Amino acid sequence: VKKYEIVRTILGERWNTAPHYTIKSAFAPTNIALCKYWGKRDEELNLPLTSSLSISLGSKGTTTELKISGKSDDEIYLNGGLMQNDSPFCQNLLEFLNLFRYEQTPRFIIHTNSNVPIAAGLASSASGFASIVLALDGLYDWQLSQDELSILARLGSGSACRSMWQGFVHWHAGIRSDGMDSHGESLRARWPEFCIGLLIFSESEKAIPSRVAMQRTITTSALYQAWPSKVSRDLAAIKQAIGNKDFQLLGKAAESNATTMHATMLSAWPPIIYSVPETLVAMQRIWELRNEGLQIYFTQDAGPNLKLLFLQRDIDNVLANFPSIEIIQPFAID
Amino acid sequence: VKKYEIVRTILGERWNTAPHYTIKSAFAPTNIALCKYWGKRDEELNLPLTSSLSISLGSKGTTTELKISGKSDDEIYLNGGLMQNDSPFCQNLLEFLNLFRYEQTPRFIIHTNSNVPIAAGLASSASGFASIVLALDGLYDWQLSQDELSILARLGSGSACRSMWQGFVHWHAGIRSDGMDSHGESLRARWPEFCIGLLIFSESEKAIPSRVAMQRTITTSALYQAWPSKVSRDLAAIKQAIGNKDFQLLGKAAESNATTMHATMLSAWPPIIYSVPETLVAMQRIWELRNEGLQIYFTQDAGPNLKLLFLQRDIDNVLANFPSIEIIQPFAID
Repeated sequence: VKKYEIVRTILGERWNTAPHYTIKSAFAPTNIALCKYWGKRDEELNLPLTSSLSISLGSKGTTTELKISGKSDDEIYLNGGLMQNDSPFCQNLLEFLNLFRYEQTPRFIIHTNSNVPIAAGLASSASGFASIVLALDGLYDWQLSQDELSILARLGSGSACRSMWQGFVHWHAGIRSDGMDSHGESLRARWPEFCIGLLIFSESEKAIPSRVAMQRTITTSALYQAWPSKVSRDLAAIKQAIGNKDFQLLGKAAESNATTMHATMLSAWPPIIYSVPETLVAMQRIWELRNEGLQIYFTQDAGPNLKLLFLQRDIDNVLANFPSIEIIQPFAID
Repeated sequence: VKKYEIVRTILGERWNTAPHYTIKSAFAPTNIALCKYWGKRDEELNLPLTSSLSISLGSKGTTTELKISGKSDDEIYLNGGLMQNDSPFCQNLLEFLNLFRYEQTPRFIIHTNSNVPIAAGLASSASGFASIVLALDGLYDWQLSQDELSILARLGSGSACRSMWQGFVHWHAGIRSDGMDSHGESLRARWPEFCIGLLIFSESEKAIPSRVAMQRTITTSALYQAWPSKVSRDLAAIKQAIGNKDFQLLGKAAESNATTMHATMLSAWPPIIYSVPETLVAMQRIWELRNEGLQIYFTQDAGPNLKLLFLQRDIDNVLANFPSIEIIQPFAID
């Protein structure tokens, strides 16, 4: 219900006006955190304990189309397939949409198309909620600022607030209890040589949702207390690395941040391990390659898959070792 | 050289006397830490930052025979095979032996026989150094106390100080800079139903020696700062569990202590992972079995192997799930 108040505050007199168009579609990229969001100071408003920093994945993301419907109920299509409205996916989506609708009117036909695996640690919910907010802004012609849109997306899923921009995005934790200062900020830096390789071991749903893992870690891990200051140092290093195009500094800080986040989970009770055997094998291979001089690093989210970080000049070498990866060049689309 | 002073202090006027016998053999059990030793406050004297608690493995361990030799050099046989004196194994052993010999006389023929895999995280060095100290004490007829023997064994390898007793052993960290208060103490408690299952995935040498991993973790892990207070809590829980024969409390504290130690390594730079793919699969299976009601826990040292913890009543069930394990009943030999 706090969420509802935030929406009304941001929309102001635009609250409960009729849509300006009958159909609107919007795309938002998914994003990968180089410095992780791990721990909330407010569960309902998705306010983080620490700031974080991500890179958006260009054309990888979610397009959501909202169309005014004459029917008595919403219809939701995920990648072309009609979903049951009582499925967890639809319930999350509708609960979010209802923040913006008076008595759930108007009804929508919603098409959400994602080109990233759902719930496999690739932040599909981030691009999903961000694209919904953008589609709503278009449909109602609210003309909200990107910061406002970022805050609204955050109400759906924390990391969605970073999907409002391409490139490197710094999510400021903020200090206000209403979260009006907790939103993304584009670093504007471009780094055309920057590459991400998606190394997918499993596209299946996570055994433990990240929000559950986060909560269990905070309440049971003896090591979590040291996490916030680790984030401060890594965030500063990554920002410096981006400013100087110092890839080694970026890679080290990002990988260390990821392994340390997983370390807090390993020390939770019961322990949480998202890695599968293939994850371990790939990590050891990455460390071997780095010992041989290749500048390759990884990051890992709440799932088994790895995201390789490297520079364009090493694409051939990386592909020779990881032939199955999908390579994203986040700055290639500009 | 500090080590040398400790030896002279403990031996007193027995220092540099001739051996009383020409041959002596002694056995010491290996031990598995339920609350880990992870971090040193003195590298040379193997003084730990925290106390720890172990269970000795009965007849699993090392027998060392020392025989006075007329030859010009020591001869070392490991499990029957003559070793090169310039191998790391012999150099460690001879460096330790030389603490007790004046100008390396007398020379010894040394037979060391271990029934635990060498350097596979099964603390073969602990039983090795403990058995050497016991054999020396016998050969020279020093008649040292067990606490003194424990201190001497610690100079060879920290965890060796716990191998001076069977059963549960509490290694007190101590506060003295000379380490004269840093030795094992037998808890005397017996728990005949207590079982350990050795689940061996690899008997090969560790890629990273534990002393290197320990040092790297302390100097680079952002999470290590929280480790000492974690140990205090786990140690208290395990002692309470032993006193009350509360197996669930013991299992939880021991497993959580182990995963948290590995978490500090995962957050080191470069990160350290001792688990192999089979380790991960076994952990997930253990957690599944526990969810199904079986009281089974694990601990893991600086290697890929797991040590399962369970009670005698569940042997059949554990064996059905892990047919390859070797089961140790530490209190069966009394």
